[in-house]
Amino acid sequence: MASKLVKNAVGRMVPTEVNGQKVVPFGGLGKHRPSGNKYAPPIATSLDYPEDGNKVVGSLKEALKKCGLKDGMTISTHHHLRDGDLVSNTIFDIAHELKVKNLVWLPSASFPCHQPITRYLEDGTIDHIEGSMNGPLGKFVSQGKMKGTAVLRSHGGRVQAIQDGEVKIDIAVLAAPSSDFFGNANALNGPSACGVLGYATADYFYADKVIVVTDNLVDFPNMPMEIEGIYVDYVVVVDKIGIPEKIVSGTTQITNSPDRLYIADLTAKFLLESGILKDRCFMQAGAGGTSLAIGHYVHQILKEKGWKSQVGFGGSTKYMVQMLEEGTMEHILDAQAFDLGAVESIAHNKNHHQYPVYNAYNFHTKGNLTTMMDIMILGATEVDVNFNANVVSHSDGYLLHGIGGWQNCLHAKNVILPVPLFRDRIPVIRDEVTTICGPGELIDIIVTERGIAINPKRKDLIKKMKGSKLPIKTIQELKEEAERICGKPKAVEFEDKIVAVIKWVDGTVIDVVKKVKE
Amino acid sequence: MASKLVKNAVGRMVPTEVNGQKVVPFGGLGKHRPSGNKYAPPIATSLDYPEDGNKVVGSLKEALKKCGLKDGMTISTHHHLRDGDLVSNTIFDIAHELKVKNLVWLPSASFPCHQPITRYLEDGTIDHIEGSMNGPLGKFVSQGKMKGTAVLRSHGGRVQAIQDGEVKIDIAVLAAPSSDFFGNANALNGPSACGVLGYATADYFYADKVIVVTDNLVDFPNMPMEIEGIYVDYVVVVDKIGIPEKIVSGTTQITNSPDRLYIADLTAKFLLESGILKDRCFMQAGAGGTSLAIGHYVHQILKEKGWKSQVGFGGSTKYMVQMLEEGTMEHILDAQAFDLGAVESIAHNKNHHQYPVYNAYNFHTKGNLTTMMDIMILGATEVDVNFNANVVSHSDGYLLHGIGGWQNCLHAKNVILPVPLFRDRIPVIRDEVTTICGPGELIDIIVTERGIAINPKRKDLIKKMKGSKLPIKTIQELKEEAERICGKPKAVEFEDKIVAVIKWVDGTVIDVVKKVKE
Repeated sequence: MASKLVKNAVGRMVPTEVNGQKVVPFGGLGKHRPSGNKYAPPIATSLDYPEDGNKVVGSLKEALKKCGLKDGMTISTHHHLRDGDLVSNTIFDIAHELKVKNLVWLPSASFPCHQPITRYLEDGTIDHIEGSMNGPLGKFVSQGKMKGTAVLRSHGGRVQAIQDGEVKIDIAVLAAPSSDFFGNANALNGPSACGVLGYATADYFYADKVIVVTDNLVDFPNMPMEIEGIYVDYVVVVDKIGIPEKIVSGTTQITNSPDRLYIADLTAKFLLESGILKDRCFMQAGAGGTSLAIGHYVHQILKEKGWKSQVGFGGSTKYMVQMLEEGTMEHILDAQAFDLGAVESIAHNKNHHQYPVYNAYNFHTKGNLTTMMDIMILGATEVDVNFNANVVSHSDGYLLHGIGGWQNCLHAKNVILPVPLFRDRIPVIRDEVTTICGPGELIDIIVTERGIAINPKRKDLIKKMKGSKLPIKTIQELKEEAERICGKPKAVEFEDKIVAVIKWVDGTVIDVVKKVKE
Repeated sequence: MASKLVKNAVGRMVPTEVNGQKVVPFGGLGKHRPSGNKYAPPIATSLDYPEDGNKVVGSLKEALKKCGLKDGMTISTHHHLRDGDLVSNTIFDIAHELKVKNLVWLPSASFPCHQPITRYLEDGTIDHIEGSMNGPLGKFVSQGKMKGTAVLRSHGGRVQAIQDGEVKIDIAVLAAPSSDFFGNANALNGPSACGVLGYATADYFYADKVIVVTDNLVDFPNMPMEIEGIYVDYVVVVDKIGIPEKIVSGTTQITNSPDRLYIADLTAKFLLESGILKDRCFMQAGAGGTSLAIGHYVHQILKEKGWKSQVGFGGSTKYMVQMLEEGTMEHILDAQAFDLGAVESIAHNKNHHQYPVYNAYNFHTKGNLTTMMDIMILGATEVDVNFNANVVSHSDGYLLHGIGGWQNCLHAKNVILPVPLFRDRIPVIRDEVTTICGPGELIDIIVTERGIAINPKRKDLIKKMKGSKLPIKTIQELKEEAERICGKPKAVEFEDKIVAVIKWVDGTVIDVVKKVKE
């Protein structure tokens, strides 16, 4: 990338052009105002669609050809089939077979099962990926092997980019656990049921062409229409869209590590003592072991107090469902279901609602769900002394995770990062993070097994917690403690080549990832 | 209107410009292909919306001012409160008070309760109405009193025009029987519950600014989100949005006129004998007395045969609900609920689904529900010997009705018009209709109390009905019979002034309405 580098508002050198497209450097929170109108796809006419409503074609290959698949197109997919996805790789097998080149893949996330895609990144079928790269694809990128530059966006940032026309989807290929012949689809039933399709909304609204791929063709009308047939061009029926046991886990599990449980306990106590946890609060945790433990403790506190959380935002798990069913949570709003208990619940519990990230996380819309959340529990691979945090790379420099909804969630009223002080004897709290994914201004509380740091910006919380018996420390103290134990972490050596850019929720560039010197 | 007139494909002289905007004359069925991209509203940013999600402002006046209400803007409303609507008139009271001029009102339909609007058409607050004008407003237009030219569209045509940017909504003011502070709204509960808001979708998707007006502010999240809060700018809470007994009727009633009952019986018999009525058929009737009677007879036949209709498309009534509950209808897809039984059902019956006209009727989308319907029962004020039909004007020339979904529904597999041979001694079947709203090619069967005419185009049906004991006649025979009884109808005298244009489903102009010579 020959583009000029400029220093952005968090002090990182970022390019002004990525993959031949102009980009805006991050200018600080709330500084970027969008202009112009949303993207809108071409006007269709029903004259081009079958009068009997039957859009089923013989194969994905046929559908892709009918959609005019050609060099340079952008193909989008969602990640609801997670590590059990059997559809995405097939798209590029077909593209390769058809000798199509320089595609852009825009997944809402990728997983280890997508490792075969590296072959197509190597042979030029795919130019680059815009989307999170969990595991092997991330490593491939960090090694400088991808032709174009990766663009990483949050789930909401992906919606923003699609909506604003920063990325134009030529063909969306949407796997669906059930569909009727018209393309009305949802995820409630079928062998690959995954509960919710909350990441596919922007794709079918804004793509020029939409293909639904299902292994479960059902009678018209397939309700609810989580994907709406009026946006769908073709329906493809295949034997299997996914491997069920890799789509949803049979059991999500609370951590049993004593350290993690201690962090969870500290977090719950802090939430209660600080008054953040209260009756009718809006809360969001994750599905990781520590988050689940926090949820469990919160559930107990709510029960004792006779309180309830008014809204919990998913990714949902059986633990959230338990809160719903035991009356400590009024509503679950859900963009993805992580386990079988959650899938079951969304089909049957009246107050367990599908709520796409399109509605929850897009920064360029008329209000976000995230700013309404009282409690937001998030993770991080690294946090620096200014509370800036990293979620995409490890301290060895490798890009191994996606942003997920993390950046979007930073806009909650109280953002809490329960993290271990170190991992594999590498400090998590440090002078500087490898990659800045979120500015410290938005991160309020760091909870570790060695103490809790409150962002100095949160004078209200510091005052409130004065005299608390909880181990409140400064972030500097936590950092020093980590370094006393593990030693000062060595700087990673990078080459100059920028292999990925990290977008902020407003579409500006907050940081880059460089090729690791191996 | 000084615009040039040209003869369109159904032989009507139509303008090429309406209200200063270029329009395309109807070129025949399937002849107009749209080009370009859909309209897209400006990109918003959540920076401009309250972080706590609370968008409630003090009054509709305040909301309209915050939306920048000014001269020449287009204001849209939906008609779900029907003749009990207390919101629409208020908008223009406020506009008048603020001395705003030359507005365009884009209702999805208007009713007699909107008669006070004529005052604002007279004083220049409103330039013209684009939307159906039932009753007094239509008469006002036919008298040539409106400054601009009325534009009449079908329900689907309205969606098409909004989507394609033929009409740009500056402010949508959407009455909602329930809303939370964020603007998530539906019609299931509250004093003004009307069941469904299936006409509001295009408005909130495409309007630059959206105001929700409710008399029933409920806790967040208000589910289902039939109006999605992420599109809403302001929420206004008022005492009453509507007069309940005028919103939904307590009882929709099957006709008790012997003539109408006979027409209904003939229709049902024809449907069965022709094989159009069959197991798993898709059907749509209306809520008029004759249509309800047909529905009743069909229900009996289905029961006897052990068949069921797979899909019924509403406007729904308690009679459709009865079919659902007694198992002769599998699903109701519903864009509006006509009576209390239907409102009750949509809130509780799992297979009674909200299905916006946005999804059912828009011709410029990837397939329409209407082409999938086996049985389509519609009305008409007049039908000509070429099966062309009129639904907007009476034989005295006055514009007294909207198009509704009528044009959209003409695309069904079998379109049946059960009509009396004459009304008030004026023939319904005639040489030429006053206004062509739909081309005869799409109309298959006319059922009158004196006989049934099959469109000669439908050779399959003519063959099928050969030897039937039903009174099959030609349309010419029916017309002559009408004229034998009533005499040949006198031509209405019109002035040259075009007071309204009738758009076809693809946005082209199929006919005009002229000022009646009084």
